Amino acid sequence: MEGDRQRPAPAAPLTDHLQLLLHRSREAKNCAYCPYSRFPVGAALLTASGEIFTGCNVENACYSLGVCAERTAILKAISEGHTSFRAMAIASDVCDTFIVPCGACRQMMREFGTDWDVYLTKADGSYIVKRLEELLPLSFGPEDLKKV
Amino acid sequence: MEGDRQRPAPAAPLTDHLQLLLHRSREAKNCAYCPYSRFPVGAALLTASGEIFTGCNVENACYSLGVCAERTAILKAISEGHTSFRAMAIASDVCDTFIVPCGACRQMMREFGTDWDVYLTKADGSYIVKRLEELLPLSFGPEDLKKV
Amino acid sequence: MEGDRQRPAPAAPLTDHLQLLLHRSREAKNCAYCPYSRFPVGAALLTASGEIFTGCNVENACYSLGVCAERTAILKAISEGHTSFRAMAIASDVCDTFIVPCGACRQMMREFGTDWDVYLTKADGSYIVKRLEELLPLSFGPEDLKKV
Amino acid sequence: MEGDRQRPAPAAPLTDHLQLLLHRSREAKNCAYCPYSRFPVGAALLTASGEIFTGCNVENACYSLGVCAERTAILKAISEGHTSFRAMAIASDVCDTFIVPCGACRQMMREFGTDWDVYLTKADGSYIVKRLEELLPLSFGPEDLKKV
Ligand SMILES: [Zn+2]
Ligand SMILES: [Zn+2]
Ligand SMILES: [Zn+2]
Ligand SMILES: [Zn+2]
Repeated sequence: MEGDRQRPAPAAPLTDHLQLLLHRSREAKNCAYCPYSRFPVGAALLTASGEIFTGCNVENACYSLGVCAERTAILKAISEGHTSFRAMAIASDVCDTFIVPCGACRQMMREFGTDWDVYLTKADGSYIVKRLEELLPLSFGPEDLKKV
Repeated sequence: MEGDRQRPAPAAPLTDHLQLLLHRSREAKNCAYCPYSRFPVGAALLTASGEIFTGCNVENACYSLGVCAERTAILKAISEGHTSFRAMAIASDVCDTFIVPCGACRQMMREFGTDWDVYLTKADGSYIVKRLEELLPLSFGPEDLKKV
Repeated sequence: MEGDRQRPAPAAPLTDHLQLLLHRSREAKNCAYCPYSRFPVGAALLTASGEIFTGCNVENACYSLGVCAERTAILKAISEGHTSFRAMAIASDVCDTFIVPCGACRQMMREFGTDWDVYLTKADGSYIVKRLEELLPLSFGPEDLKKV
Repeated sequence: MEGDRQRPAPAAPLTDHLQLLLHRSREAKNCAYCPYSRFPVGAALLTASGEIFTGCNVENACYSLGVCAERTAILKAISEGHTSFRAMAIASDVCDTFIVPCGACRQMMREFGTDWDVYLTKADGSYIVKRLEELLPLSFGPEDLKKV
């Protein structure tokens, strides 16, 4: 996070949580219901208050009714009263590239602010981190609806 | 349901759970994120093992990325390892009619079998119960995909 | 259509269009983009003014962003200025059962009224016809949103 | 594009089509069915062969079943046999910012390649153009599904 580098204080805010967040995203993958794609994905969401909610992809015979792991994690957190988030980690079985969220998931994250760190992992556990703005630049958000 | 194995007769299997299920669906409504429709909905899902998972609707500035309460509840349960369900209760603020699930939610329920009781409530707490087959007759399901 | 039986006049309103509607639904299937399911579907929609719009399923690597044939046909018609519909025919390669619309498609049809005849076909061209109310009983519709 | 083969230099390939594309996106907005958001959007899609398909947003009482203008345009083109695209123009009634596609629409565009120019307009007709890679960097696409 660029801004964090310059700030003296907030003390590496994710340090405590990051390994756990990554671990939970891998674990969450085990619950994936993906009989159609056979492409399991897990996600772990860190709330502003420090709690973690996990999600997996849940597919449907009518493919369009499936839901990604990232959205599942957000839905769980919202339905438990959380609406402020800090980071998401995503895990899949892909070895050679870092798994990324689809455009729909980026948009759902965007609904709850742009201050997100997104941890993209490989199956071996290595990761890179991106800001949501880097994944969904020039985004449409709640405030845009009020402009008409 | 585990408990059923020990019981001699099926004997109104939901009796123990029903009031709690209805209560939890009303409670879940409080977490709804619905700034666009201002139409909060809550759902409570009873698993075959007797656990309850709740959901609320979660909307998005890009309306099509919203998710209904019923689907949120199912996603939560799946992501915690449950795939066998018995009943769903749905609550809203509508007074004069029983709230019903949309077609998309009926289809998502259908993915996990047809043996569902769906409790449709009014704001005053009164309810009617329907079988999923009554709500989505002649349904398309996982087995149909294999017919081509 | 029950109402039609009692009416003396409108003279089997679909007679002229039905064979063409069925034919167009089969043709539309050829444009299906379904590399993931390999389950091509076609749909043909008859507007109140007698025009036919066709659709096919269009899938996505992010499965949840796919769209069914029935919804594609409706979207095309709306985007050309039509909002009043009479019938839909659906075609697939399934031989042994009549192809049915998923719950999401039933809901999208419902948005534009309940006065729909839905022709469900087999690959051999045989068909049955259902009213939308038979496919989506106790439906949620535009008027329900206003009840809160 | 067929025409490109004959031309010696790429030479502003959209010059001929751009004004028409922008015009058609504004026109398409008139067909929007958006009783819930009251936020009409139009889109015009230019195929590789030089044809234009238009779309508008089509909403649903079950908000999650709505479809954006951009996706409607793509669905129309696919259902008429086109799968290769060059550009999309998007129009809305927003005056002070350029309308952008949501993440779901960016993902649907991505399914059909990354070689897209996206024209983002204001209500006064002014525009900026972005490449799809700029709107959906580090994207997930069809080839990624094969990596597991
Ligand atoms: Zn996604
Ligand atoms: Zn629903
Ligand atoms: Zn469908
Ligand atoms: Zn969109």
